[in-house]
Amino acid sequence: MSFTFNVLKNSSQTSARLGKININGIEIDTPVFMPVGTKATVKALTPLMIEETESKIILANTYHLVLKPGLEVLKKFGGVKKFMNWKGAMLTDSGGFQVFSLAKLRKINDDGVEFSSHIDGSKYFFTPRSVMEAEHIIGADFIMCLDECSKHDASYDYVKEAMFRTHKWAKECKEYHDSTPNSEYQYLGGIIQGGMFDDLRKESAETLVNMDFPFYSIGGLSVGETPEQMHEVLSKVMLYTNKQKPRYLMGVSEPRDILNAVMEGIDMFDCVMPTRNARNGEAFTMNGIVRIRNSKYRMDDTVLEEDCDCYTCKNFSKAYLNHLDKTHEILFPILMTIHNVRFMQRFMKDLRNSIENDVFSDYRKDMMNKFY
Amino acid sequence: MSFTFNVLKNSSQTSARLGKININGIEIDTPVFMPVGTKATVKALTPLMIEETESKIILANTYHLVLKPGLEVLKKFGGVKKFMNWKGAMLTDSGGFQVFSLAKLRKINDDGVEFSSHIDGSKYFFTPRSVMEAEHIIGADFIMCLDECSKHDASYDYVKEAMFRTHKWAKECKEYHDSTPNSEYQYLGGIIQGGMFDDLRKESAETLVNMDFPFYSIGGLSVGETPEQMHEVLSKVMLYTNKQKPRYLMGVSEPRDILNAVMEGIDMFDCVMPTRNARNGEAFTMNGIVRIRNSKYRMDDTVLEEDCDCYTCKNFSKAYLNHLDKTHEILFPILMTIHNVRFMQRFMKDLRNSIENDVFSDYRKDMMNKFY
Repeated sequence: MSFTFNVLKNSSQTSARLGKININGIEIDTPVFMPVGTKATVKALTPLMIEETESKIILANTYHLVLKPGLEVLKKFGGVKKFMNWKGAMLTDSGGFQVFSLAKLRKINDDGVEFSSHIDGSKYFFTPRSVMEAEHIIGADFIMCLDECSKHDASYDYVKEAMFRTHKWAKECKEYHDSTPNSEYQYLGGIIQGGMFDDLRKESAETLVNMDFPFYSIGGLSVGETPEQMHEVLSKVMLYTNKQKPRYLMGVSEPRDILNAVMEGIDMFDCVMPTRNARNGEAFTMNGIVRIRNSKYRMDDTVLEEDCDCYTCKNFSKAYLNHLDKTHEILFPILMTIHNVRFMQRFMKDLRNSIENDVFSDYRKDMMNKFY
Repeated sequence: MSFTFNVLKNSSQTSARLGKININGIEIDTPVFMPVGTKATVKALTPLMIEETESKIILANTYHLVLKPGLEVLKKFGGVKKFMNWKGAMLTDSGGFQVFSLAKLRKINDDGVEFSSHIDGSKYFFTPRSVMEAEHIIGADFIMCLDECSKHDASYDYVKEAMFRTHKWAKECKEYHDSTPNSEYQYLGGIIQGGMFDDLRKESAETLVNMDFPFYSIGGLSVGETPEQMHEVLSKVMLYTNKQKPRYLMGVSEPRDILNAVMEGIDMFDCVMPTRNARNGEAFTMNGIVRIRNSKYRMDDTVLEEDCDCYTCKNFSKAYLNHLDKTHEILFPILMTIHNVRFMQRFMKDLRNSIENDVFSDYRKDMMNKFY
């Protein structure tokens, strides 16, 4: 098993780049979007449908999987990919983000974080080592270090303290992971923190780059800051990352944010938004969002997006989708999710083509004008 | 467009028969099971998934479609098959059953039935002609006369009155339908009523057979009576039906009832049970029902049914289904419904093979022993 990353082309006017990941035999063109399959399923899609969107890699959440179905089940099945029958690549987060956003009664110290399940209140203690052990059992191709994600309006002192803890945990995760046979087929990413503070972001990036992870993620963004703040943090922190490695921006799928982040050199993205908003009736198209619940679509015989090649757009009208929503039919989230995930992959492909042809800046402006 | 029905083989020991329907170019082997797509969708399945279960014909409900999306929408789309992109055959009921089971504030007289929508209370008046007009717009291949379905414990006098009304309406439906161009590609079935009373069933069957419908259904069964009562009514009423025509038992999918009904010569079935029970965690297998919510399946790495060729059984364990149910994932009803509908089609195929090989009685006993 193996992991390689090659930058195939650099944009001449921006830091955008085209790349190719080869992870355990699976090829992934970057920049790449990873749909989220939180609890061992990308909501409303069969694995076959995920494949048909041309998604090569999906994300699952360690926090949720530890709670349900639990590590005992996943161990028996040889990991979550076999459990859910997903044949593509997978990345798991460390659960850190969910512990700090979902779980209750958190107690944090330098050893780890104690929390109560948001489902039944039962207690868990996540440490760098226990998270590595969990991610080893879950068995994704890419795994992440335990980190502490500060709120976007946290104080400098708190963000600094959390950053130091994140670095300590990163070191412990890496040392433990590298000592196990799993390091031969699971690849551990370091998470850069530091909030909205330039000096902390620089320090975090440099510290983690020195630890020599196979890839890096930028954590602590998409947590409530404005798109401009996000872009500004990225434009600075990316200078201190390692250009030979894939760089992953967690929790982002808004086209504006993806375009800005790719401009700064980000290679990987994930977010629940395309799937969640699909279920809430928002279809993404190259010309912006279609809110299919609007009664103006009741008699509309056009498809969501004329140029889209997804199963939904090849077969069903807006009127039919509007009807399925009004009648609360299960087919509604299915067809909407197929479209939105396929939209993301079409968008990423267009974006990659624009880098290939060195017209990324034009593409970015054009897409911003069309979408917003 | 055309409709033919040929009996290919008669069981030597029972009234079971193997047949072939050709409806507007679509071939359907009988006895056949029709999954129910009440509101222009077989719940939780894409049309492609329905096809993959080898279902050739599905049912939709006139009552529900008149309420939502409404005839105006369906007219614009050229009927419900185009609206939902279903390329197989379709049958619509008349809405009579739903008016008497779902709607509120019914007022019935010999002209028709007035009722309030169970959704928003708005008023509708169904007459034989208005139901024909609705079914013409909905555009199924097989359509049904307006009828009044009595409760299984209704008095003799009430059942008799409802039966006469059903006959009057059948005559009016047929006269109107036959006067329209739709009669060249939509085929109208008569519904035999008469409750649990032998003389009324005989009278109803003979009256409708004299009207010469292209097919007949046995209504007023599967409404609360015991399996033995249903079987007894069938064993008597079938004697008075026309053996050259397909005979359809409405609202039945329980294997016991199908086996009994096929033994008496029934050719067509529909029921929501396989799809509804799928969503409630009941998987049908040749060896009986698997209640997948049971915690004993939490670690079970076997599939629902070893011999099943459906997408669910080829790819997912009981443990995974148990997990999807516990986490309320949309993939749960999808995978369960695929299996149950495919189960019904495998069951019907086995049953047809047993008639072909003239071993239906043995098959019936064997299936009863295995399933119950």
